Amino acid sequence: MVTPLLTDLYQFTMAYAYWKAGKHNERAVFDLYFRRNPFGGEYTVFAGLEECIKLIANFRFTEDEIAFIKASLPSSCEVESIEDCKSRKLNALCWKNVEIHAISEGFVVFPKIPLMRIEGPVAVVQLLETSFVNLINYASLVATNAARHRFVAGKSKLLLEFGLRRAQGPDGGISASKYCYMGGFDATSNVAAGKLFGIPLRGTHSHAFVSSFMSPDEITEKSLQSCDGSNVCEDFISSVQAWLSKLKRSHVLGGIFGETNQSELAAFVSYALAFPKNFLALVDTYDVMRSGVPNFCAVALALNDLGYKAVGIRLDSGDLAYLSCESRRFFQAIDKEFGVLDFGKTSITASNDLNEVTLDALNKQGHEIDAFGIGTHLVTCYGQPALGVVFKLVEINNQPRIKLSEDVSKAGERILCRHPFNESKRAYVVPQRVEELMKCFWPGRSGTYSGVLVAAP
Amino acid sequence: MVTPLLTDLYQFTMAYAYWKAGKHNERAVFDLYFRRNPFGGEYTVFAGLEECIKLIANFRFTEDEIAFIKASLPSSCEVESIEDCKSRKLNALCWKNVEIHAISEGFVVFPKIPLMRIEGPVAVVQLLETSFVNLINYASLVATNAARHRFVAGKSKLLLEFGLRRAQGPDGGISASKYCYMGGFDATSNVAAGKLFGIPLRGTHSHAFVSSFMSPDEITEKSLQSCDGSNVCEDFISSVQAWLSKLKRSHVLGGIFGETNQSELAAFVSYALAFPKNFLALVDTYDVMRSGVPNFCAVALALNDLGYKAVGIRLDSGDLAYLSCESRRFFQAIDKEFGVLDFGKTSITASNDLNEVTLDALNKQGHEIDAFGIGTHLVTCYGQPALGVVFKLVEINNQPRIKLSEDVSKAGERILCRHPFNESKRAYVVPQRVEELMKCFWPGRSGTYSGVLVAAP
Repeated sequence: MVTPLLTDLYQFTMAYAYWKAGKHNERAVFDLYFRRNPFGGEYTVFAGLEECIKLIANFRFTEDEIAFIKASLPSSCEVESIEDCKSRKLNALCWKNVEIHAISEGFVVFPKIPLMRIEGPVAVVQLLETSFVNLINYASLVATNAARHRFVAGKSKLLLEFGLRRAQGPDGGISASKYCYMGGFDATSNVAAGKLFGIPLRGTHSHAFVSSFMSPDEITEKSLQSCDGSNVCEDFISSVQAWLSKLKRSHVLGGIFGETNQSELAAFVSYALAFPKNFLALVDTYDVMRSGVPNFCAVALALNDLGYKAVGIRLDSGDLAYLSCESRRFFQAIDKEFGVLDFGKTSITASNDLNEVTLDALNKQGHEIDAFGIGTHLVTCYGQPALGVVFKLVEINNQPRIKLSEDVSKAGERILCRHPFNESKRAYVVPQRVEELMKCFWPGRSGTYSGVLVAAP
Repeated sequence: MVTPLLTDLYQFTMAYAYWKAGKHNERAVFDLYFRRNPFGGEYTVFAGLEECIKLIANFRFTEDEIAFIKASLPSSCEVESIEDCKSRKLNALCWKNVEIHAISEGFVVFPKIPLMRIEGPVAVVQLLETSFVNLINYASLVATNAARHRFVAGKSKLLLEFGLRRAQGPDGGISASKYCYMGGFDATSNVAAGKLFGIPLRGTHSHAFVSSFMSPDEITEKSLQSCDGSNVCEDFISSVQAWLSKLKRSHVLGGIFGETNQSELAAFVSYALAFPKNFLALVDTYDVMRSGVPNFCAVALALNDLGYKAVGIRLDSGDLAYLSCESRRFFQAIDKEFGVLDFGKTSITASNDLNEVTLDALNKQGHEIDAFGIGTHLVTCYGQPALGVVFKLVEINNQPRIKLSEDVSKAGERILCRHPFNESKRAYVVPQRVEELMKCFWPGRSGTYSGVLVAAP
């Protein structure tokens, strides 16, 4: 819910004070930037620009909102000209005369460099401060967090954002899904984000699904058509039970498990009957190696007999590195003993309280995980839940309020580059191409702002 | 934006799987609770219930949403009965048969105790899991954080939530304002939250306002009417300048400052002219004791001559304990030397990166701050940005899936109470009154759920 009211009260009191001082139309330039990279890192992914542009493109106060602003300002404010200046005029003028230049969304950016430059009548631009800072702050933070997770996980792994239930509010969850995708994740579990932004959706089932079943006896509809539609297996449960016995009798696998959990088996069979082409099972409700993995394999092998290929397993607790390696060995043994093509490559997803540090630790230990489902630490940015974005006045009426260098680099010229944080690290670089990072995203219009912003609507 | 789509994909895949297994109507009970208090503390404030009830009260899928869910499910799903079961039927049935009991919002709660108990057809209740966990998680976390800040600050201090620009997304900001107020804050700077929830609004001006002025010369409209309307001061600036000279010549104050910053003075005068009844100045743009406080006092004294009472100052950097004590001494000296009633009690607000720990440190050092404006640490719950709320199946078809004690305590009977975390701490208590903590917040309706939840719309 982005409305022009999503701002601090003092943006309105300042606008009124600018107007009272006759300064509201003075041309001001504000820079939006941050002072330090998050997570102790050396880069930030710039995100949230689209939302800022959307805000200004749709910037209008409703009559109701204007009445609320009036009521919120001190009673001494002069509001006698209300009838003269209709809200439509206010709404039309607010954004017309503002220009926004910015670095493109998704670019890697650094501290103290302007990410956005907003120019316009001081009273109008001032109104955008809190909203813009809010929209850039979390978006850039979580996109950066996602990029850092991608960097540690490596390019070949599937990264799934599973953070909705831990995100800071419903919209926090939607922003998280959007900006994690921008930062390099492959998919989300968040259906609303999938619908809004076209992000691929992923999901399987929870522990509740497994524990809601008692035994395979309660499954009444047991038949399953083969993948190509050519035949029907009348009793899929028996086929699964037969595979379970075969696995138990196997030389290689027999010692690993005895009786598996029947409530879990019932849940897996039911899930496979519902989604024979997309069978992915959560295997840690009872015991991963003694029940979950054997039960999964029995169902997967029965599906294989009907031409279906199971997707894989999900591990959500325990020693993920060890369990993934054991599971992989189990799959490979089946591949070898029963000659099931590619069974050894069955996908393993892990998803228990993962973050950059645990991903790194898993890499060091060695693991067989193909996909990571990451929630809490990713979406709340646990390591640092806020980025210090600021919105500073740098110029008013062509008078600088912060000194800026006017040097422009040219291609082919040798230039001295400084490390952004370590003064002693420097290098000469000859740029092959020089690109203007700031582009115009909101051109504004000519003319001056003549309305009274807050007092007079 | 709370829609039934704000959930994980697997809630829908499970609903479909329950239906395929013929289990979708089985009566299930889910408990929502958390396992550990946040911030290393011993209590949590329960919040977010109203949003959960609103979600269920307005639970309906649009045609568009149903089409999206269908498209997101694996293609093997049976959707041939779509025409039979209109979305209206699906929408009507989803919530009818669900009962919700919960502890009242705002109550202090403890780990492992059910906060909400949701009962209904397993496939329907399962659909609520992610949304409910999301809505309770951050709400309870930030309400608890606010309560902890209130506890450290003490009852007499004014607590202002200033977190919007650092909150995790726009809606994160609105939730923060709402639940900080519930947790014991007095006001917010967030205009949208003020409008939505009637929370008192507070705000003054920013550093940009101060630096946007050059000198008092640029102020063209210099007159100010007295508070009672009986006379007009034609040149308020001269009156302020006269006070500044008086302060400079004073025996007690003279040594503290020399020339104050004129751009700051111009900003303060302008702000006072705009809000003579609500003059609150940010005094740390240049130098608090050598410029900000003397400038503020000169303006406040000129206002006082016209019958207005200045509100106070805001400190946003530096050693807040020291600066507040120095400012208080300055105010008291004026009170004494010039006989300005209550000037010594002028309000001091502090607002720089405050949190529980810094509030505690300020208390230990001794300070003269009357109001705290708290942002980043409060709203992002920096110390622990997520609460581990879970949603667990405890019963299905009257079969327990988690063992629960059935003991009910009675008034007048001696009962043994255990400390929730320390097993060795116990005490006998004779309750004078026994109150049922769980109340019914959504009564549901009789009848069974007969539609196909996801597959058939």
